[in-house]
This record gives sequence, C-alpha cells and structure tokens, in this order.
Amino acid sequence: MIFTRSVGKYILKLHKTTNRVYCCSRNITVIQNKMSDIEKKFCLPKRYEGSEKSVWVEYIQLALEYKPLNLGQGFPDYPAPKYVIDALSEVASGENYMIHQYTRGFGHPRLVAALSKLYSKLIGREINPQTEILTTLGAYEALFSAITGHVDDGDEVIIIEPFFDCYEPMVKYAGGVPRFIPLRMKNASEGLPSSADWVLDQKELESLFNSKTKMIILNTPNNPLGKVFTEKELTQISDLCKKWNVLCISDEVYEWIVYKPNKHIRIATLPGMWERTITIGSAGKTFSVTGWKLGWAYGPANLMVNLQMIHQNCVYTGCTPVQEATAIAFEKELKRFGSDECYFVSIAQELLPKRDYMTQFLRDVGMKPIVPEGGYFMIADWSPLESEVDLTSETDRYKDYRFTKWMTKNIGLQGIPPTAFYSTPNKHLAESLVRYCFIKKDENLEKAAEILQKWKTNRK
Amino acid sequence: MIFTRSVGKYILKLHKTTNRVYCCSRNITVIQNKMSDIEKKFCLPKRYEGSEKSVWVEYIQLALEYKPLNLGQGFPDYPAPKYVIDALSEVASGENYMIHQYTRGFGHPRLVAALSKLYSKLIGREINPQTEILTTLGAYEALFSAITGHVDDGDEVIIIEPFFDCYEPMVKYAGGVPRFIPLRMKNASEGLPSSADWVLDQKELESLFNSKTKMIILNTPNNPLGKVFTEKELTQISDLCKKWNVLCISDEVYEWIVYKPNKHIRIATLPGMWERTITIGSAGKTFSVTGWKLGWAYGPANLMVNLQMIHQNCVYTGCTPVQEATAIAFEKELKRFGSDECYFVSIAQELLPKRDYMTQFLRDVGMKPIVPEGGYFMIADWSPLESEVDLTSETDRYKDYRFTKWMTKNIGLQGIPPTAFYSTPNKHLAESLVRYCFIKKDENLEKAAEILQKWKTNRK
Repeated sequence: MIFTRSVGKYILKLHKTTNRVYCCSRNITVIQNKMSDIEKKFCLPKRYEGSEKSVWVEYIQLALEYKPLNLGQGFPDYPAPKYVIDALSEVASGENYMIHQYTRGFGHPRLVAALSKLYSKLIGREINPQTEILTTLGAYEALFSAITGHVDDGDEVIIIEPFFDCYEPMVKYAGGVPRFIPLRMKNASEGLPSSADWVLDQKELESLFNSKTKMIILNTPNNPLGKVFTEKELTQISDLCKKWNVLCISDEVYEWIVYKPNKHIRIATLPGMWERTITIGSAGKTFSVTGWKLGWAYGPANLMVNLQMIHQNCVYTGCTPVQEATAIAFEKELKRFGSDECYFVSIAQELLPKRDYMTQFLRDVGMKPIVPEGGYFMIADWSPLESEVDLTSETDRYKDYRFTKWMTKNIGLQGIPPTAFYSTPNKHLAESLVRYCFIKKDENLEKAAEILQKWKTNRK
Repeated sequence: MIFTRSVGKYILKLHKTTNRVYCCSRNITVIQNKMSDIEKKFCLPKRYEGSEKSVWVEYIQLALEYKPLNLGQGFPDYPAPKYVIDALSEVASGENYMIHQYTRGFGHPRLVAALSKLYSKLIGREINPQTEILTTLGAYEALFSAITGHVDDGDEVIIIEPFFDCYEPMVKYAGGVPRFIPLRMKNASEGLPSSADWVLDQKELESLFNSKTKMIILNTPNNPLGKVFTEKELTQISDLCKKWNVLCISDEVYEWIVYKPNKHIRIATLPGMWERTITIGSAGKTFSVTGWKLGWAYGPANLMVNLQMIHQNCVYTGCTPVQEATAIAFEKELKRFGSDECYFVSIAQELLPKRDYMTQFLRDVGMKPIVPEGGYFMIADWSPLESEVDLTSETDRYKDYRFTKWMTKNIGLQGIPPTAFYSTPNKHLAESLVRYCFIKKDENLEKAAEILQKWKTNRK
C-alpha cells in the first residue's frame, strides 16, 4: 500500500492510492536499512505514526498550483466588518504601548471579561472570567487543549460524522479510541434536501456509550454539513452523557451563523449539562477574521483546569493586541446585542442570499445540494454528473478526491472532498459529495455559477 | 506532603511546603471517595500527573495582589520600536483586507521568505522557506513542537541548568526522561563574577550521553543566567551530539541581545551540526513585542517534518497580520543589516547601560550580581543579606521563593525565584539566588535602586 521515496535528504512515504505524504516511520525495516543514522533515529514518535498532511495543506498547494476559483477553505474573500479591523489597527498604534507585551496566560483580562458578560447572558449563569474561560490560539488550540487535557490512554471518544478533520488525530495522539457515528440521511423531506434530514440513529448512538466512554465531540452548527442540532436531538445526547457520566466538547464556532427559523441551542444550557460541557468558540468565525487565530473555551472550573495545564505547557499565552481588539469588538456587539445591526444577527442575514444562490446554481448544473441550516458550507451530491467526468487521470483512493482534483484542474473550480471529514470505515458514505464554501463575494459566486454553466454547455 | 481541599466544585491539592496548586490525580484514593463522579472521572490524564501551575502564573498573581515594582517577567516596560508597531497598525488597516484571513499553515509566505533571507545569511547556506522553516505561536510553541515531535517514550533528553522552565514538562509529557546537568561556577575571575564563570563539567556532560539520548536542549544566550556559550563550549557539545547521533534543540530567542565582546554563535553553523540542529527564534524577543506571540524554528527538512505534524494538529496556523507585520520589520532590518541603526545591533547597546546600572545598585545593597554576557536578566546572590530578612512568615519549600515573596510583600520589589529553572535534585543550587529583569525604563530601574537603598538605610 505504501511505497517510499527519497526526496533530498529524507524519506517520504506515499500512499499509492491517496497520493498523500506520510512521515517516516520506524516499523518499515526494509527502508530503514537504506536510511542514514539521522533518518533512522529521528522518525516521528510512535504515538504520531500514521500522521499525514491534512487535506488543507494538500488543497492549498493545489490551489496555488492551478489557481482555480477557490471555494475550498472556510473564510470570507471580502472585508471583515470595518470596526473590527479598525480596532486592531487602533490598538496597535494606541497610547497603551504595553498592549504589545505579554498578557495573562489563561486569557487577556479585558477579553475574558467581555466573554464572561456575553456567555453568562447566553448560558443563564454567572461565568467566572478567571476560572471558567480560557482564551486560546484559535478554536483549534481550544480543541487540542480540551481533547488532550481530558483523554487518557484507552478512553473512548464518540465523534459524529462528518466531523472537522482535526478531531480524530487529536484523540489518537492523546491515546484515545475514536468511536464514530455518522449522521445518516433519512427520507428526504419534500422539496430540497436539507441538513435537517441528516440524523443520528438513536439506537446506534446508545450502543456507542459504555463505561469506557470519556467524551463526545459535538459540532453544531456542523462543519461541513451545516446541520443545526435541535433541542430534541441535543436532549438525547445529553441524556446519554448524564447516564454514562460523559464529558461533552461542544464545538460551536459557527454559533452566530444560523438561518431562520433554525435556532442555535447551546448544549451547556440543557439541565445537568453545564457540569459536563466544555464549549468552544472562535473570534475568526464570529467576526470573520479567521487570520486572527483566536478562540476560547468555557465550562466549569474543575474541567477547565485540565485545559489550562495543556495550554500552559504548549503555548502559555495568547497574542495581546489581537485579544484586546477582539474584546473591543465584543463590547460593541454587547451594546447592540439582539438588534438588527448586531453582527451576530446580520452575518446570517448577509449569508442567506449567498446560500440560496449557491443552492440554485449547483442544482442548475445537475448537482444535488443539501441546504445547510447553519454555517457557511454546502455539501452537494455530484453523482448525477458522474458520467460527465473522466476521473481516470486522478489516482486518489477516494472518488471525491478524484472529483475535486479533476474539477480544479479541468474546470477551474475548487471544492473540498468530504471524505476528509469521515473515518476510514465510513469514507464511502461521502465519496459522491463535495463541500463548497459560500462566504464569498457575490461576484465570485457568480463566477462559480458561470464556470459550472459553461461546463454544462460544453459537455452537451 | 500533599494535602487537599475542596474549593467550590473541585478538589485542589496543595503542596504544604511550596503552597503550589496541583490538579486532581487519580492515585489518591482517600480523596476519591469524597469526590463526585465527575471529579473522579475528569482528572488530568496520567501523562500529565504532577503538573503544576508555572512560576509565571503564581508570580503574576502575586504582582497583581501586592503591586510591587515588578522586575519579574521578561518584557520591556517601554515602547517597542515605533516602526514595528506601526507596521502592525498599517497592516491591519491596509488595503489588503485578506491579511485578516487564514494564511499558509506552516508559515506566512512573506515571513518565511524574510526568515529564509536572514538565516541563510547567518547560517551560511540556503535555507528553504517552505520546508526548512516553521513559524509558530511564540517560541514556546516551537519548543513544544520540536520536543513533542521528536521525543518518544523512554528517550533521554539532556537539559542544561538553569533552564527555561517549560523544557522539563514538555519533555515529560512526550514520555521522555530529562537528564539534567547544571552549569557550575568555577573560581570567579578577577573583578565581578560573570555568567562566563558558569561552565559545564566536560566529564559530567560526557557521562550523560548514551545510546538512549535523543536530544540536548541548549539555550544561548541562556535565560536566566545570561551565559553566552563560547565556540569552544559549543564544539564540545556538538562533538558529543555527533558521536552519539543526538539532536540539538537550540533555543536562541535572545540571539540579538549579546554584550560586546561576547559573540552569539549559532551551533547549527558548526561542522556537521546543521543536519542535527533545530534552532528556535522569537519575534517577541527580537523586536521587543513579547505580546505578539510569534516564533519560529528552522532546520533540515527531515527534522522539520516532525514539527510540522505537531503544529498541524495542535494549532494548525498562525496569526496572519502579526506575521505580515513581522515580515515587514525583518525586511527593514535586512536593508540596514549590520549598521548601527539596525535594531539587532542597537538593542544590546540600549540595554548595556541598564545592565551595568543594575549590577551597581545590586552590589550597593549588598547582593552579589552575576554580570550576564547576554539576555536581559541578571542573577544575583542575595545570601549576604540573609541576616537582614525574616523569612519565617513565608512557607514555601525553597528559600528563593520565600525571599522573593518576602521582598514583594515587604520591600515592594519583585524578582523571580531561580529554583524554578532547576530540576528538583538541583534546586538547592539556586536557593540563594534571585532573577531580575533589566529591560525596563531607566526611571523604573532608578526606582528599584531607591527601594533597595531605602531598605538598606532602614535596616541599619
């Protein structure tokens, strides 16, 4: 399955089928004989064996090479709210020059104060800014701290598929055992299929819980599907968490991007769940500044202590000016909270026509989009077009990789292959799908529509 | 040794002697009986047992409480170079609004290009910006990625004491076994004792290397001592690294803060060492903006791959505007490289009179400062004053903790206890020492001198 080649001074292993690069690993003795002493000794530690470059690294490289219209990664291609970026500029050049020096390791005081104010209101209890909130280097580091701070060798962790791709390696690095459960499409409702049609099988979910279960990772609104879990669904999950004494990591980075009439429900607000939930948020997703790399986690102090320990020994503290600017942005939104001007309200209104436009142009070209209830991604089934594409030039194992690469190279439109968001045994569930991001300028969405329309015309 | 108490919902364990807070741990069965199910199950994973809050968390809290003149943490209390902070402000409000979105995970292209240009010149070989440089969330994350990316269960790691305090927990979390070797003071040279008088015993160093040795962590200029390793000393280390096929992690965050006639030598430039060295740098220390939380590591691609894997699964990518601003700062310095205006030259010139002033006022009050060859910390022996202080009110195990706390509370001047930079068996070597930071406004250094002078007068 794996063959190797020497590039410069080091050995790369490539999966023949996926074409993805693996790091050197000590259990391939045939190769070791050809490796220098340095190469033999400085392999990845055993606990990271099988690590591979993520889909992001591969697809960013692909985009650089082929320069497609890129609907891949999840970030806006238009300006973030002006007052947000002005805040960073003003903080940087402001009178308080100490803002360029270290701040409190577990969270900049002004930011944790603002987060406490916001989430105390949303959760309906006083959240202590010192002990119940940790600010992190992106929601990514919050996930890392939460997962590696709680998962011990042999602990089982339930992951709902499709899942944001870093959950699985983080659980494995901590010595945990991921137990996967896919959302499955029930009989589609009338009209367009929606992310609401994707549900967990209650019996299947129950069967995963046992005395070894340490954690379940929830993501609502879900990336890549856009599913917004309902109160009923969350209650079923929380009943099982309470029954089996399980911790819930709730990744809610898209908490403000929910399309009416759907409503984002924080699982920490359900009865008995605050005590066992760590909720994760993101400044990048909240204020459309993904490059600021600022996130947070909040939950009860006894659970947060574990995250503090990881954070302290991994990054120690965050970026002060970015935290100050984000605090200023939150303070502004708190003043106009709930009004139509509030960005937490307006962002979904701004994205709704983009979502609907994308739904339409994907249908027009023959795909079957699944309308998301939240988030800014759309999953579409491209299998009706299978006869129109010749994927034999692509060598990846999974068809969605072949399709997205072929589209990038031949049609000039890039999406992300959703099998990246599934465990190996369940990847087959997503091979006929593609993920597109619609937090893009109208003009770029129109270009995407044109590209697809032109392709449709040409193939007739 | 350990007793526990319940604070709110959770169990804290306190070392009676150090008064430091430990996390709950599953091996205390007596307590477990009193713990709720949640408390029992959600202890720190075994690999983190014994974790404690770092000296920084404790001493920042102390400073907040007693508001002393703070010569504790290592950051300037005056403005960073204006063009550096202007760069961040201009980047934030500039025309390229995409600078607020995700950038390349392993390093923002403009920044790795600038780093490649600088270090190719300094190391004397072409450094590939794509494969041989990784930008990180502070040098701290670079250390984390280098250590956990290379240290496997049972690997031995040589750490030179005193050491920046995060090395030890990072090695332990990776399953490694730290092997410590202290710098020891040889017969002091004539005049003032200097950090150059602290040396490794060559025989002792040799005795630590064996077939299990994976890594040695070097820090030059050293924090907290200020020692700048000479070419001869580095050659001795590198000979052992080559003999035993050992990786060198060279923490060089103070690379530009070296006082004449001392010279910073990069161990990666010694013969045969590029292949086995990962060098770590810091924008915070280079440009006096510790709050930017930006660092990097560079080395040969086969060693860097391991760091990329950790980085990818822990934080994934860095802060784009901060990386862009730092790239601009480097580009400016590269243009005036080597001239007196270059900040890499002027920063040590700016700090030299501060160093000498602190040396003088510590001597005046009766301490024995060790003049640093580099960095912006000074270690001083306070034992001549032992009869002047009554430390019975303090309960910490180590005398330097008691001394620094007593000074903070009673005299109003805060330093850092250097036993924090030693392994448990060697902490006794540092109990009569204190660390002060001198990258502070002249007026604050004068205040420190006055505080100490007043204390001296009063105690007569």
